[in-house]
Amino acid sequence: MKKAERIAAITHLLTENPNRDYSLGYFAQEYGCTKSSISDDIKLVRTALESAGLGYLETTSGIKGGVRYVPYISREESVKVLEDLKKRFMEPDRLLGSGFLYTSDIMFDPVTVKGAARIFARQFACADADMVVTVETKGIGIALFTAELLNLPLTVIRRESKVSEGSTVSINYFSGSAERIQQMSLSKRAVRSGSKAIIIDDFMRGGGSIKGIQDMLAEFGAESAGVGVVVVSGGLENKKIKSFTPLLIMDEGEDGVVIDINEGIL
Amino acid sequence: MKKAERIAAITHLLTENPNRDYSLGYFAQEYGCTKSSISDDIKLVRTALESAGLGYLETTSGIKGGVRYVPYISREESVKVLEDLKKRFMEPDRLLGSGFLYTSDIMFDPVTVKGAARIFARQFACADADMVVTVETKGIGIALFTAELLNLPLTVIRRESKVSEGSTVSINYFSGSAERIQQMSLSKRAVRSGSKAIIIDDFMRGGGSIKGIQDMLAEFGAESAGVGVVVVSGGLENKKIKSFTPLLIMDEGEDGVVIDINEGIL
Repeated sequence: MKKAERIAAITHLLTENPNRDYSLGYFAQEYGCTKSSISDDIKLVRTALESAGLGYLETTSGIKGGVRYVPYISREESVKVLEDLKKRFMEPDRLLGSGFLYTSDIMFDPVTVKGAARIFARQFACADADMVVTVETKGIGIALFTAELLNLPLTVIRRESKVSEGSTVSINYFSGSAERIQQMSLSKRAVRSGSKAIIIDDFMRGGGSIKGIQDMLAEFGAESAGVGVVVVSGGLENKKIKSFTPLLIMDEGEDGVVIDINEGIL
Repeated sequence: MKKAERIAAITHLLTENPNRDYSLGYFAQEYGCTKSSISDDIKLVRTALESAGLGYLETTSGIKGGVRYVPYISREESVKVLEDLKKRFMEPDRLLGSGFLYTSDIMFDPVTVKGAARIFARQFACADADMVVTVETKGIGIALFTAELLNLPLTVIRRESKVSEGSTVSINYFSGSAERIQQMSLSKRAVRSGSKAIIIDDFMRGGGSIKGIQDMLAEFGAESAGVGVVVVSGGLENKKIKSFTPLLIMDEGEDGVVIDINEGIL
């Protein structure tokens, strides 16, 4: 295999498997060359990705020497992602008669949610979390991509207790969006005591359902390591939870609904 | 930018954006070099990816000349993915008292479901579909990764009609798993008449819910372009739908449940 081809193959593998460790020996064996050639290839891959703002290669030296790709998104690229997201939310025919916005197509569009997940993955890269958690349904896409980028498992809390979940823990919480008490339910097998979870959801109004997820984690002896939501509505004040990271902030202005990018995460 | 660095950057971008078209001019401008250098770089990337069985680069020549990365998974790699999947399904403590298998952790493990999605993406690469569709909840992960790999949007059918979906179409179907009539509901905005959808789900027993999805598509004047399920239970016979592609086949053997890899898709 030529050097240029090795570089393409290594870049492909690292890109496809973010935050996973690969030893130099693995590549050397796979491509039939010495570890020092691989080490040299990796330096070139690192320069290319880092200078283009696409990610970092973390390397460990010594006998177990290896490499791991840590995804990154530049400020410039984040702005592009958030401007696109905002534009989609503001499309005129999304407003439903009920006052809700129709967003299901956005939340399951892989290109859009992967971009947003990159921002969350950068934000929570140092959270030292064991898992990502969301509550069904519309946040699952962005939560899954965030989990993929951080190389963590995703746990999905259900609305109802399901027979296929085995024995479950259920909690009740007040949902401001639905204006009533709602339930969420999670398999007893799903969370280990002592673990730390990044909570991701698509939409937050009063924070009731995020608070519910935090209460659920507490039932398992686990805790929140960070909260990311795609859109918060009603501005940033008067929420049931203290700390959260929205991508977009939606509020009532004089001429109707206004959506702003959360500059704090750029 | 050095040639080796360009190759890393191009490989990264194509890998991150499967089935999307990029013009040679785009890369030339981005990396400050001639289109003929880019064309030469792309040949090397193609050789690397194709010879390692990681995917194809489809190129179009002429003034609008460009390139697109089409993911591929080799037979050898597919076997690895399916053996791992089978091993996870057969872990001894998954069997619930109800006779169901606990699989939520598998279905939302990014590494596992992305591998499985690669197999579906290869299977349905020529289906000429406009969208991927699933019904909530446990198939969403694999459906989303399949959609990402094919560069298609995902539509998620809900179990209940939600206010945030606007006006919806609802249908009733008989679920063999639940042994009762169930409902599914989809926003009227979600599917365009005439479109073709790849249906992906995590589990199929009698085929009632897949048949339900097909009936739902018909309500929109849309049709199925292929059906992929992670596991089919009760073998391949006596299903409510004719044509489907399972990854694993679960059946009752003399000594309990047996899970086989579907050799037909290798």
